[in-house]
Amino acid sequence: MIQRLAVLGVGLLGGSVAKAARAAGIARAIVGIGRDLDRLEPARRDGVVDITTTDLATGVRDADFIVLAAPVLTNTRLLAEVWRAAGSEAVITDVGSTKADVVHAAHTLAAARPLAFVGSHPMAGSERNGYAVARADLFRDANVIVTPTDSTEPRALKGVTQFWEALGARVSSLAPATHDRVVAAISHLPHLVADALVAAAVRFEPEALAFAARGFRDTTRIAASDPTVWTEIFLDNRAALAAGVAAFRAALDELERLVAAGDRQALVEALARIKKEREGLA
Amino acid sequence: MIQRLAVLGVGLLGGSVAKAARAAGIARAIVGIGRDLDRLEPARRDGVVDITTTDLATGVRDADFIVLAAPVLTNTRLLAEVWRAAGSEAVITDVGSTKADVVHAAHTLAAARPLAFVGSHPMAGSERNGYAVARADLFRDANVIVTPTDSTEPRALKGVTQFWEALGARVSSLAPATHDRVVAAISHLPHLVADALVAAAVRFEPEALAFAARGFRDTTRIAASDPTVWTEIFLDNRAALAAGVAAFRAALDELERLVAAGDRQALVEALARIKKEREGLA
Repeated sequence: MIQRLAVLGVGLLGGSVAKAARAAGIARAIVGIGRDLDRLEPARRDGVVDITTTDLATGVRDADFIVLAAPVLTNTRLLAEVWRAAGSEAVITDVGSTKADVVHAAHTLAAARPLAFVGSHPMAGSERNGYAVARADLFRDANVIVTPTDSTEPRALKGVTQFWEALGARVSSLAPATHDRVVAAISHLPHLVADALVAAAVRFEPEALAFAARGFRDTTRIAASDPTVWTEIFLDNRAALAAGVAAFRAALDELERLVAAGDRQALVEALARIKKEREGLA
Repeated sequence: MIQRLAVLGVGLLGGSVAKAARAAGIARAIVGIGRDLDRLEPARRDGVVDITTTDLATGVRDADFIVLAAPVLTNTRLLAEVWRAAGSEAVITDVGSTKADVVHAAHTLAAARPLAFVGSHPMAGSERNGYAVARADLFRDANVIVTPTDSTEPRALKGVTQFWEALGARVSSLAPATHDRVVAAISHLPHLVADALVAAAVRFEPEALAFAARGFRDTTRIAASDPTVWTEIFLDNRAALAAGVAAFRAALDELERLVAAGDRQALVEALARIKKEREGLA
């Protein structure tokens, strides 16, 4: 049982963490921390958080479990302040889509004084954002990747793993750098590409969007995501993303070459191979 | 009332045309034409078609309404044979995703003897294919683009428009070349990009696909589509597709440049503009 759960950022993910923890009954008190008390008020009114504050140090001081749910660069930037204010028994995690930088920041801080941090990335979300779309069941059957390293405190890994499992998630583990390459491939690259597809369609044939059907809608759904959240993800994971974009360009070049050459048989074979790979998703 | 409806190719689209026409009661007899009698048998057994044949000339001979639902290059190639075998009163359309070439072929044939053809493109479908996934309601509330030209016979345009409306679709009209650019932007380009995303993810980080969540699934759903159908679409629309790919590359380059430069403010603004454009979809 968590005595006091502090959630920094009560939007889609942080709000869902608070709702899910409340629904699962795993925290006695839940503190919501944000920049604007008015925007924290709906969660308090719903009974999802018990206390709201705009003061980070106050919010985390007596918490035994702390979840950072701001945009990724903000989480990393605020970690030092959390570390200074939090008690020595507190377990800390985050819900960001990038892991190498925040884990590195935690290691740097831990060199001065122990810090029970392990990074988390719940593979759940939505192109919509804000507390209004937070859901108590967002993590149910979702995959949460945790990213411990050799120097992670065992009690942090154990506590964070149990936390996600209590919210209904499946927990798997990757090294931070591997995580960042994996999500570059399956999330950040598709996101950048969806953005470029919308931008290209609008510029190439302005009247085209009026005819968009399910294919375009699905392919570009994530292009409606929060601009600040995704700017921070792209910037934080820029190295792996650049490598992913390079792999994507090579794949697109190859397909375009087959089309331009009119190579029917090779194109059918390439598309059949891709279809099989896509159908291989569980 | 159509006396005899002939459908060439009884897969997802042709099968859905036959099912929808039967359900709407707008055709007395329905003929299913395909390359393999065994594969036409389920539609006959279902009572969706009354007659099956592998002989194109026999199949269309007494039909007053003919729908070409084979892959696009095949439709265009077979149009001359349909034209020779069909009666002079027959109205002919197709359901292909490209229009310039098939309309051009129809015009060439009509120069020798009248041909009541107008191209159609129902904006409905699925990444799955075959008669087994055909649905009587596939065209309900779908957008069907028809592509008449100055030389289209008025009775063809009227008959084809009424046909789709009877199946529950909304009909709009574009010039064939405009249609091909529009669908390059909102369908063929996204499709090629989805294919490249799957190919890139597999090559860039082979273990990544095991972690794919809803974002990747939605973005790449159409990459599981029929390889032959899409090879013919890409090849038939290669000019507009190449122009669309060029616009896409420019948009991707621009976003990548902002990420590489670490230009936070410009990136937030670009993503905010794209979010707004994406949300502008009806």
